[in-house]
Amino acid sequence: MTQSSIPGYTFGTPHVSASPITDADFALLKQTVLLGDDDLRYLRMAGEVLGDQIEAVLDVWYGFVGANPHLLHYFSGADGQPNPRYLSGVRQRFGQWIRDTCAARYDRAWLDYQHEIGLRHTSAKKNRTDGVTSAAPHIHLRYLIAFIVPITATIKPFLARKGHTAADVEGMHAAWFKAVTLQVTLWSVPYVAPSAF
Amino acid sequence: MTQSSIPGYTFGTPHVSASPITDADFALLKQTVLLGDDDLRYLRMAGEVLGDQIEAVLDVWYGFVGANPHLLHYFSGADGQPNPRYLSGVRQRFGQWIRDTCAARYDRAWLDYQHEIGLRHTSAKKNRTDGVTSAAPHIHLRYLIAFIVPITATIKPFLARKGHTAADVEGMHAAWFKAVTLQVTLWSVPYVAPSAF
Repeated sequence: MTQSSIPGYTFGTPHVSASPITDADFALLKQTVLLGDDDLRYLRMAGEVLGDQIEAVLDVWYGFVGANPHLLHYFSGADGQPNPRYLSGVRQRFGQWIRDTCAARYDRAWLDYQHEIGLRHTSAKKNRTDGVTSAAPHIHLRYLIAFIVPITATIKPFLARKGHTAADVEGMHAAWFKAVTLQVTLWSVPYVAPSAF
Repeated sequence: MTQSSIPGYTFGTPHVSASPITDADFALLKQTVLLGDDDLRYLRMAGEVLGDQIEAVLDVWYGFVGANPHLLHYFSGADGQPNPRYLSGVRQRFGQWIRDTCAARYDRAWLDYQHEIGLRHTSAKKNRTDGVTSAAPHIHLRYLIAFIVPITATIKPFLARKGHTAADVEGMHAAWFKAVTLQVTLWSVPYVAPSAF
């Protein structure tokens, strides 16, 4: 699947909202999550390792969401029942998100897309991308933050599946953890007053 | 040092604000960070392992904050310079926080104290506990979330220092990660509208 055929995937296009984060503030944020050059190298390595396992990772994540009605709720239609088309559209972007997380250049286009993703979790843009009417107008901030755990914990077995040394698996996993936490932090921007972020 | 001699430490007292989180919502949150009985066992194990290393852990964390002016800023006095008394008061509570994290019973008293800690990061209560006037009226939400990484990544060497098996160290570290993310999630409550949390 090409990126442009993924419904609602707009990375690097004029349809993306501009991030309010300055380069200086972003540099301090990267410093705070201890993200360095080694991590970039390990993220690229993770990208190679995960490349042909994306659907299997998504199966685990969707299995988790599907097994938890309080999470599946966010994929509901107006009737409160899971909307298969909505689940499928998000799934394709979620797969691309794995690739993008590993390939991140942390430039302005990347920062803007993080802001776009953040907005798509709030009532400003959730449901609009997929043109759905949902019983859930937004993703609660609690689950945005809490999801750092399942998204980080469940990736490790996949990172270990291609014969890398224990040290490399640890390195990839640590880099993934930093990258995910950094992104969740940026996604929280539209939830709070600018002065509180 | 006894708990009651720690300045501003009010766990389990009537001075603590009440958490707005219901038992049902809290149960779902624990489920979302995959926190189970095994994790409680590993947290207790971590408490034993870390018990006589608390000051060494705090040295690492304070070293990190001290090396980063954008973080040290939050411990500033009215003149913008680091306030030693403020740093010291928080340090004592931070040490107790490690013990409490490992001993957490996740009951109502614990939930209320998480809310109290959250408030103490916002302008509602920051600085008041220590009776300081600071150039920083609140902790920005970005660093509350981003700190999940340094607080989680730096604890692992300490967990490995008492001769436990690799599997036990992994187990303690995974439980610590879940416990920290759960707490940061709860600390974010006062930052957002109740409907958005």
